[in-house]
Amino acid sequence: MNHPLRVVIVGGVAAGPKVASKVIRLCPEAEVTIVEKGKLLSYAGCGLPYYVSGVVKDQKELMCTPVGAVRDSVFFQHVKNVKVLNETEAMEVDRASRRVRVRDLLRGQESWLNYDKLVLATGAKPVVPPIPGTDLCNVFTLQGVHDAEGIRAAVAQDTARDVVIVGGGLIGVEITEALVQRGCRVTIVEMMPQILRILDPDIVRLVGQHMESHGVRVLTNTKLERIEGEESVKAVQTSGGRIAADMVVLAIGVRPNVALAEAANLEIGPTRAIKVNDRMQTSDPNIYAAGDCVECNDLMTGKPCFVPLDSTANKQGRVAAVNLCGGEDHFPGVLGSTVCKVFDFCVARTGLGESAAKDQGYDVVTAWAPAPDKAHFMPEAKLLMLKLIADRKTRKLLGVQAVGPGAGDKRIDVVAMALMAGMTVDQLANADLCYAPPFAPAMDNIITAANIVRNKIDGYMDGITPAEVHQMLEEKRDFTFLDVRSPQEYEQVRLPGSMLIPLGSLRGRLGELLKEKEVVTFCKISLRGYEAALILKAAGFNSVRVMDGGVAMWPFPKLV
Amino acid sequence: MNHPLRVVIVGGVAAGPKVASKVIRLCPEAEVTIVEKGKLLSYAGCGLPYYVSGVVKDQKELMCTPVGAVRDSVFFQHVKNVKVLNETEAMEVDRASRRVRVRDLLRGQESWLNYDKLVLATGAKPVVPPIPGTDLCNVFTLQGVHDAEGIRAAVAQDTARDVVIVGGGLIGVEITEALVQRGCRVTIVEMMPQILRILDPDIVRLVGQHMESHGVRVLTNTKLERIEGEESVKAVQTSGGRIAADMVVLAIGVRPNVALAEAANLEIGPTRAIKVNDRMQTSDPNIYAAGDCVECNDLMTGKPCFVPLDSTANKQGRVAAVNLCGGEDHFPGVLGSTVCKVFDFCVARTGLGESAAKDQGYDVVTAWAPAPDKAHFMPEAKLLMLKLIADRKTRKLLGVQAVGPGAGDKRIDVVAMALMAGMTVDQLANADLCYAPPFAPAMDNIITAANIVRNKIDGYMDGITPAEVHQMLEEKRDFTFLDVRSPQEYEQVRLPGSMLIPLGSLRGRLGELLKEKEVVTFCKISLRGYEAALILKAAGFNSVRVMDGGVAMWPFPKLV
Repeated sequence: MNHPLRVVIVGGVAAGPKVASKVIRLCPEAEVTIVEKGKLLSYAGCGLPYYVSGVVKDQKELMCTPVGAVRDSVFFQHVKNVKVLNETEAMEVDRASRRVRVRDLLRGQESWLNYDKLVLATGAKPVVPPIPGTDLCNVFTLQGVHDAEGIRAAVAQDTARDVVIVGGGLIGVEITEALVQRGCRVTIVEMMPQILRILDPDIVRLVGQHMESHGVRVLTNTKLERIEGEESVKAVQTSGGRIAADMVVLAIGVRPNVALAEAANLEIGPTRAIKVNDRMQTSDPNIYAAGDCVECNDLMTGKPCFVPLDSTANKQGRVAAVNLCGGEDHFPGVLGSTVCKVFDFCVARTGLGESAAKDQGYDVVTAWAPAPDKAHFMPEAKLLMLKLIADRKTRKLLGVQAVGPGAGDKRIDVVAMALMAGMTVDQLANADLCYAPPFAPAMDNIITAANIVRNKIDGYMDGITPAEVHQMLEEKRDFTFLDVRSPQEYEQVRLPGSMLIPLGSLRGRLGELLKEKEVVTFCKISLRGYEAALILKAAGFNSVRVMDGGVAMWPFPKLV
Repeated sequence: MNHPLRVVIVGGVAAGPKVASKVIRLCPEAEVTIVEKGKLLSYAGCGLPYYVSGVVKDQKELMCTPVGAVRDSVFFQHVKNVKVLNETEAMEVDRASRRVRVRDLLRGQESWLNYDKLVLATGAKPVVPPIPGTDLCNVFTLQGVHDAEGIRAAVAQDTARDVVIVGGGLIGVEITEALVQRGCRVTIVEMMPQILRILDPDIVRLVGQHMESHGVRVLTNTKLERIEGEESVKAVQTSGGRIAADMVVLAIGVRPNVALAEAANLEIGPTRAIKVNDRMQTSDPNIYAAGDCVECNDLMTGKPCFVPLDSTANKQGRVAAVNLCGGEDHFPGVLGSTVCKVFDFCVARTGLGESAAKDQGYDVVTAWAPAPDKAHFMPEAKLLMLKLIADRKTRKLLGVQAVGPGAGDKRIDVVAMALMAGMTVDQLANADLCYAPPFAPAMDNIITAANIVRNKIDGYMDGITPAEVHQMLEEKRDFTFLDVRSPQEYEQVRLPGSMLIPLGSLRGRLGELLKEKEVVTFCKISLRGYEAALILKAAGFNSVRVMDGGVAMWPFPKLV
């Protein structure tokens, strides 16, 4: 090359600006141009729910650097020496001549930009279902700042009291919380049997209960048929009936923007996102892609997956920049690590869920570990409920899910590192995690979870899930449902069909129980339940199982 | 054996009860006896500072299980089927006959207990310096509940306004905070050049500043010579002068209780704690040891270390129990993971510190990464300052230190897992940590830290520590100390000897700077500082370095 490296980046929200910044750092002489269809660039799309809720006061905050500089075109030009063409659309990639045709959306002029390296960071766009009424007033998706502005305005003008959120995924749940905080009555309409499909159904039940306790109505197995209204929305018609609504937010999911890549005959993967190698190169080695428009390698399955996340976009952007400048870096893939705030709950997961793990052929063992997230005597300790998933044969960790007010994100990140390293439950159980009463229990929650898995694999503990127990109760099966908590605890709340023998008196009251009858033991968190099961087994009881998670993780109605 | 397994456990605070509980779960028929010198057992010793501060209201809370059952002798006998001999001292181990001579401290009677397996969980005791006055009234250590009671009583009776804490280790710092919360004026007297020797000196400076902002006086390089007073303490005499005090807390450190082990000719390690293998066996295969009386394997150095912690004690107790019941489990060792609350700061570390890493022969590279611990636009985001330590040659992670109000414990635990797995900075930089604005920035703090190390190793960034810059300023060296923040930021606070050229105008104002003169750039967090350095290097400046951590981590006086 007898000219500076010319880099054209299509897309200016997350991965694009990251690529631009990093390229300039690596090759200060490079000529970098960002082409962005919208007016704004480099805003934090994942912050939009918090802008709707009012937690974030000013949309400028979403566009700032952590030190408060607004990342607009002037910022990119002056600070970064990056040329920004905003309100400009990339129309066509001419791979043979290495140029991109762009159209100035304000003036309508078209021109060609030459590149040595092209980066597609075209992102994803919300899916709009092909049903009547999506073009009515007060029907929104949540793609850009303009959507968030529209929702805010409707709420401020008091024209959005009854809101239907279509889709119970991460975005649907986040916007639900935002609108409840704004005083709206919210109904989630979800086509599938559960919301938050990133979680196992039993864990989702606990989240659903929490949402309902905040007044949210969750309708699963319910399909949106049409949106009704004249100018503005008045109701939605679903497979389960009509719901009055003066606002509808479509949060069905997002689809990668691949039109430009497809038209250029770049390879599209099975997830319908752009296929890239671990250097973030597309099928054309001079064209890179990063962010929400590409598919990733799922480190747990080795299969392609589509998991659009700002965190991933940033990492991929850096990798793309290093490689296109002549360096060598690799993006290994993702574990599916996800976290979401749901009112007072932190809801998070990484790795495989229980059924995904079974689908992969693993002999799955699960542990349910509810416990305070700090030393239990600290007043700020909060309940954290963990479900850890491992393989019986290899003892390898497969995944973990967290729900509750406690610090779940910390434990998810710990397991994410363990999954990256292919660790076993035994290694996790002896991990040297930091301890002091204001930060963790002496036996960290995740270590306790690992030990429960070990107890199960080693044959000391037979577990049964609350869902299985619930079904036994529904079917009126003949078994002893043995609560071993204290009389005071039993007084406050109890599970249907249970009988009480406090653990301390169990050894002396064995005669009250039939040895031949199946027994399911439990307590608040099923630690005493576990000890009770051991006592019963030692006393010759034939069939004793411990109910996973105890009263704390029972996701069905309790008797109060 | 034609009799049930007889297990005698000496020590009933942390590791001892853990061993007992686990043995009973594994071998319900075992005869397990705990011998405990004190009246109480199984209390959370690490909770004592929070009992002193009043955060924990009732000492019973420290003795409870997470569900509120008090772990006294009755509890152990009834619930666990474990015999407890409290107020009983183990006097002698007769290894040949496998028996322990015990003495009932109330009645003075002695007897022998036969064992098949013996467990020493004799703990550690505070070091009391051999100086006059340690027996005066209102001179305390912090070993047991009685000490905490004594301190509480003195504070309540208003006979402890001016307190001297001798020793600035973890316990000294925790009790300092507790007493400040109780309204005491506290001075820490530390013999060594710094408090909290688990941290690097530069990081400790930031902690020291925070303590001083809460009114704590920290005197380092100061040796306690004697404690003065008649009945009660009146003052302490130190190498630096006399300090009036009506209470003294000796927090110099703890020493493992090995008298029983030593008298039984069990091997004592170089740290003066009991030597055990990774099955927690002492040099006598029938005698196990766990908790604060044993030494550990340092996973970073492979050398023995003495790091007494309740979290470690619990893990070791489980390992000892599994092995003595005929199973197989291994305690691999520790990384030195530690966390401590210091007023509003979380202070934590794992792995090697900078100088320890150099001592191990590594070519050390450090990154300083101050940033909000959550998306910067979330109001609850708090500053977290990280120092990451890695090896230039292998790119392997060596350690990390965290300080600030942000969630440092999470990042320390993430790195602890990475250290266990021997990961490189490159692996950490692409880790799939969970992201949502209320929980982390899109580029997690620890990923940013890893990327800074990568930039340094790959030659893009030359760092200089604030301490080195401070020394250059002290020595009146001729260099350009270039602040590239905004004029508004410069107005609020600035560093001595610095000049301002905001990053956005730097390209146009290069003529104001001498190319031949050494330049040190910085900003608030040294990201703009890094970009400025790249601009200067590209413009032909000879010697440009970025000051690690920027204004955020400058631990010396600033100009306000």
